[in-house]
Amino acid sequence: MDTTARTAYYKKMFEDYLSPVISGFEETGGIHGACAYSLSAPGKRLRPVVAMMSNEACSGNPAETLPVCLAIEMIHTFSLIHDDLPAIDNDDLRRGRPTCHKAFGEATAILAGDALIFAAFSSVGNSRLKVDAKADIMLEMAEACGLNGLIKGEYDDIKAEGENAGFDEIKDIYVNKTSRLFELSAYSGVRVATADEDLLNNMRTFGRHLGLAFQAIDDILDVTSSPSVLGKTPGKDAIQDKATIIKAIGIDGARKWAEEQTGLALNAISGLKAGHLKNIALDMLKRIN
Amino acid sequence: MDTTARTAYYKKMFEDYLSPVISGFEETGGIHGACAYSLSAPGKRLRPVVAMMSNEACSGNPAETLPVCLAIEMIHTFSLIHDDLPAIDNDDLRRGRPTCHKAFGEATAILAGDALIFAAFSSVGNSRLKVDAKADIMLEMAEACGLNGLIKGEYDDIKAEGENAGFDEIKDIYVNKTSRLFELSAYSGVRVATADEDLLNNMRTFGRHLGLAFQAIDDILDVTSSPSVLGKTPGKDAIQDKATIIKAIGIDGARKWAEEQTGLALNAISGLKAGHLKNIALDMLKRIN
Repeated sequence: MDTTARTAYYKKMFEDYLSPVISGFEETGGIHGACAYSLSAPGKRLRPVVAMMSNEACSGNPAETLPVCLAIEMIHTFSLIHDDLPAIDNDDLRRGRPTCHKAFGEATAILAGDALIFAAFSSVGNSRLKVDAKADIMLEMAEACGLNGLIKGEYDDIKAEGENAGFDEIKDIYVNKTSRLFELSAYSGVRVATADEDLLNNMRTFGRHLGLAFQAIDDILDVTSSPSVLGKTPGKDAIQDKATIIKAIGIDGARKWAEEQTGLALNAISGLKAGHLKNIALDMLKRIN
Repeated sequence: MDTTARTAYYKKMFEDYLSPVISGFEETGGIHGACAYSLSAPGKRLRPVVAMMSNEACSGNPAETLPVCLAIEMIHTFSLIHDDLPAIDNDDLRRGRPTCHKAFGEATAILAGDALIFAAFSSVGNSRLKVDAKADIMLEMAEACGLNGLIKGEYDDIKAEGENAGFDEIKDIYVNKTSRLFELSAYSGVRVATADEDLLNNMRTFGRHLGLAFQAIDDILDVTSSPSVLGKTPGKDAIQDKATIIKAIGIDGARKWAEEQTGLALNAISGLKAGHLKNIALDMLKRIN
């Protein structure tokens, strides 16, 4: 199976696992319904795919990662819901549909985001993983997303709007707001199968550089793409005067940097038979949306 | 040591554990500073005290519960920050100080609340507790606070404003928005020391009824107290037309019901040498703020 087919296969595996969760939430309604709405927005499910491919690369059983994939997608969804709020990015549309607060009101969107964080920990805690893997992965989730991870990245991202942030500062923001969830995905996929420290550290490094390349390409597309190809309105970074790598080193510089980051990602897993994971990293450079 | 002295002793133990965490956050500043601000608001620290007394009641070592106490207080603080937001209860003051969003802005308050959830899981995950206790407590935290716990209670509480909610519906809201954190406190205090299922279930039952009594007294004080004694503005429930037990069965009915709940709480731990815990429940009926 080539990497495109393998990606589609894992994406479908994840969607099949997610689907009854969403149906159950829809049936319950109320705050559950708001969570279902945001979880069901069509997405690439890239983080779950990375977790499953990381697991595959160390001879695991990718199906065992599914509760962790769900947890990571729930956290990703929480971060989108809260980012879109009027007090933060104030977005009305996400993937062509009204944002959660537009559809359900601001109070419900705040609470739905909160609930998805706890639901993520429930997903791992209720899984059949071994107890030491559960505890390690839950701690990794907390550290990747908390005060020194995702949330710090979002905070620094807001604070850097309209400022002349330097290259290192922007890189720090990218690490936290984007890489940490990719690190978590790669780490968790492996941790489900093994507690090998070196392997886990290499996977974190892979995720870090993959995330940096992903964010640089995202920023390039925001400048160069059209709404019909991108699936969202480009040009938002410039309007909000966001601290982006483009602002610091230009489009060509950003592309070159994304290529370097991809090289570093590949380097981190050079010792592994991880063909699909390597191709995912290379394909990310070519993505158009 | 009588129960008043014991309560003060555990409260100080917790404050001494919390204090360097707050100082560290203040030193870092930014989003950490907003978390420190809200964590340092003077409070009764009732949930940590309940956790330590529950631990003591089953011959544990209360100091071992401190990372869990910190986690529960962080979750409690997160829920206050998000509850106070303009889109939810729109409160400007909390314990005599500006609310988090008044002091730091709405975006920061949303993110600080989010960060405290993750920090709570980090506190337990990074502790020296045994791995099975860690995993169990983290799962209990997730379940107590998520879509079928605290967050559902807050959502239902908002939705019931201005409605004629029935007694059972109000009790459900109270269980979720208030009891679940007391259940978690009593459960976790014991789980640090033992995995005994019966004991843990009894502790959950104790926490449930303690929380219901606590909330009923809270609602009574909102109707009967003065600002100087209460430390906050009374009468808010009526202004917001909240679904309270007072609205359903009146003040006398609510007081009688709180007494019944206290009896059920005491009943759940009747087999334990848990004098302080029983006194805490009895004292709660007499509290004036």
